Amino acid sequence: MAGPLRIALAGLGTVGAGVIRLLDANAALIARRAGRRIEITAVSARERLKDRGVDIARFAWDDDMTAMAARDDVDVVVELVGGSDGPALTAARNALAQGKALVTANKAMIAHHGLELAQAAEAAGVALKFEAAVAGGIPVIKGLREGAAANAILRVYGILNGTCNYILSTMEDTGRDFADVLAEAQARGFAEADPAFDIDGIDAAHKLSILASIAFGSRIDFTPVETSGIRRVLAADIAQADQLGYVIRLIGIAEADETGLFQRVHPYLVPRAHPLAHVDGATNAVVAEGNFSGRLLFQGAGAGDGPTASAVVADLIDIARQTVEGGEVGAPFSIPVAELEPMAPAASGNRVGKAYLRFIVADRPGVLAEIAAAMRDAGVSIVSLIQQGGQAHLGGADAGEPVLIALVTHDGPERCIAEALRLLEGSASLAEAPLVMHILGD
Amino acid sequence: MAGPLRIALAGLGTVGAGVIRLLDANAALIARRAGRRIEITAVSARERLKDRGVDIARFAWDDDMTAMAARDDVDVVVELVGGSDGPALTAARNALAQGKALVTANKAMIAHHGLELAQAAEAAGVALKFEAAVAGGIPVIKGLREGAAANAILRVYGILNGTCNYILSTMEDTGRDFADVLAEAQARGFAEADPAFDIDGIDAAHKLSILASIAFGSRIDFTPVETSGIRRVLAADIAQADQLGYVIRLIGIAEADETGLFQRVHPYLVPRAHPLAHVDGATNAVVAEGNFSGRLLFQGAGAGDGPTASAVVADLIDIARQTVEGGEVGAPFSIPVAELEPMAPAASGNRVGKAYLRFIVADRPGVLAEIAAAMRDAGVSIVSLIQQGGQAHLGGADAGEPVLIALVTHDGPERCIAEALRLLEGSASLAEAPLVMHILGD
Repeated sequence: MAGPLRIALAGLGTVGAGVIRLLDANAALIARRAGRRIEITAVSARERLKDRGVDIARFAWDDDMTAMAARDDVDVVVELVGGSDGPALTAARNALAQGKALVTANKAMIAHHGLELAQAAEAAGVALKFEAAVAGGIPVIKGLREGAAANAILRVYGILNGTCNYILSTMEDTGRDFADVLAEAQARGFAEADPAFDIDGIDAAHKLSILASIAFGSRIDFTPVETSGIRRVLAADIAQADQLGYVIRLIGIAEADETGLFQRVHPYLVPRAHPLAHVDGATNAVVAEGNFSGRLLFQGAGAGDGPTASAVVADLIDIARQTVEGGEVGAPFSIPVAELEPMAPAASGNRVGKAYLRFIVADRPGVLAEIAAAMRDAGVSIVSLIQQGGQAHLGGADAGEPVLIALVTHDGPERCIAEALRLLEGSASLAEAPLVMHILGD
Repeated sequence: MAGPLRIALAGLGTVGAGVIRLLDANAALIARRAGRRIEITAVSARERLKDRGVDIARFAWDDDMTAMAARDDVDVVVELVGGSDGPALTAARNALAQGKALVTANKAMIAHHGLELAQAAEAAGVALKFEAAVAGGIPVIKGLREGAAANAILRVYGILNGTCNYILSTMEDTGRDFADVLAEAQARGFAEADPAFDIDGIDAAHKLSILASIAFGSRIDFTPVETSGIRRVLAADIAQADQLGYVIRLIGIAEADETGLFQRVHPYLVPRAHPLAHVDGATNAVVAEGNFSGRLLFQGAGAGDGPTASAVVADLIDIARQTVEGGEVGAPFSIPVAELEPMAPAASGNRVGKAYLRFIVADRPGVLAEIAAAMRDAGVSIVSLIQQGGQAHLGGADAGEPVLIALVTHDGPERCIAEALRLLEGSASLAEAPLVMHILGD
């Protein structure tokens, strides 16, 4: 058996503590599978003395996490600090500059600086791995980069944020409204005190941009991801969608077309027959559609210390196996950075699909005609339209109270919907801006 | 870029032709991802002149597929002949003996001879890969061997045979009976003319034994897999299960307990809230439960030329990447064969769970009491019991016609159910042997 793979662990939050627990619990098994032991030699975090439920006294302590890579007794730096920049990025850069492999769970850092880091890793001939950055414990980076490697990927999409999925599926199960369920999720520790990163779709967008780069061989490009979150989804929307045969899920989707790379995070209506419609709670799921494989689905826990630690250590086992004989470590994004294509952001206006539009309007004559006329003038063809008064959340059924109008369109270009909304802009009939949710196509 | 990886393709059925089509269609993409081209240099099959819809004139032809490994222009033999022994096994042995890597889609050969072949591959320091042998295009061997490598696996189970799943889900959707749906599936090419391997569970058992070995680090052991198929499942069983909140799926399940390794292929009742309950048609899905990852689900097309070719070529890309610099190829079963544990077959009698029991009985007084007494005497506790006459498939509702009694048990050891059936053995009340289907536990 070769010598141990020696780890410096930067960051001792729940995931860091999970990695320590996992390496303790499964040490013998991991050594058999990896062909060598995986041992933590040094750790670092902001606070040394905090109780984390794991014994860290047996490891060397470094006050400066960004300097751990320089240690002679370290082969791999595991970065679990978080944040796209700051000490996490410095620690990552230093690791690669010292010729040490890097494993990270940091989606924001990879979304923003992944290409720079991958280039440094390639230049140094060391591994850069980030399975834990996307969809927690689910081996979806590996699934795309290796499992689906024989395929041109037509589309990659999925449920990438467990907090949003927990909120939406709880709203669905209970009929409760967004704010109420969010508050409960926060109280139970399922949502952050500042939930914006999750519920506004930014976390999912980070993950999507990483998946898209691997799927399409494109330079990672987070900025153009069209991102909307779930704050405006009403219990009434979920009820309407249900009647129409759909559930609502925050979906990140990436697709290459003739104009470039389309990337969007958006609350989609998902047909009940689609596998993603059955993904409930904090679960994540990713679908990759290959030109030979067809639809591949990867599903599991998208967060939590155990699942995330499982992904981090899977990366370490890969490194332990591959470097035991000085083997090839592989390009972090499947294709070397120099060969990744810069793909232009695709225009969404030409995308063809169905959509759900919801209006909150004043209950007075002519409103329906005004909306219908705008749809007609913009070339939006309507499959079904429902007008409902008396929604409890809208404040009762009295005349004059706002009412909800929901409609579903036929397949059509998205620019027509944008045009219809433009025609309605500033209308005194609308009590608030309309909400558009696209319908996930087959 | 390194020189091409040169392939000898043994077997030119639908999968072999699919591999040729895939390597043609995605050649440039694969070269970018693998860092080198993957090229077929020689092919072989039983018949040379058959029209396969692909041009094979550009490849060298070998009449003797078992001798292809000896060619100087071949790095990897891809065996797509099928059959656990015969020319497939000879071709595989010869490849490894010649120090050539071997990729195969042959589940029967791996289930019966996988350890011998893996040992030969390890001795030769070459790769033996068989992603396509289990669950078609789904990268589940990789998912278990690498993606979940950090975990002790508590249980691995799934829908491993597309033909059975197609038949069961079609019975469910249409209310039609088994023989009728099977005949249609055969006419449409979804089931073999001789369907025994599929519908009796043998194909699924081959795949399960392979998964179990990787999941539990045990020596592959096909013989003790408790195997039953779906021939006896009635439309009435599916209707009963539906009323109780279950669907019926042929599930292969492997689990380690204190007595050894339990492996079973069996039509299970699956609670409707379980992800496998939504797997319809010819789709396959595998669940691996890790002690840190939690439940991981891999789902996709379980058969077909495109998906199977996708898995074969993924293996080739892995080999092309890993051997470009003389890197490590890894143990085929994750752990070297010499270190795999011989695990005794676990006794099923101590397994605790719920079960569905169905009896076809003569419609006369006292039958229900007889069954209830046998259950009581054997210590089987009943949750619910339904007696139904007038099932069309049982031949009408007239008095004296056979009727169906279905019951669901509380959690209890399986040996009690076996004992109850023993007590009822030979009873003149039973029109046919009872059918037991276990209920998939959480």
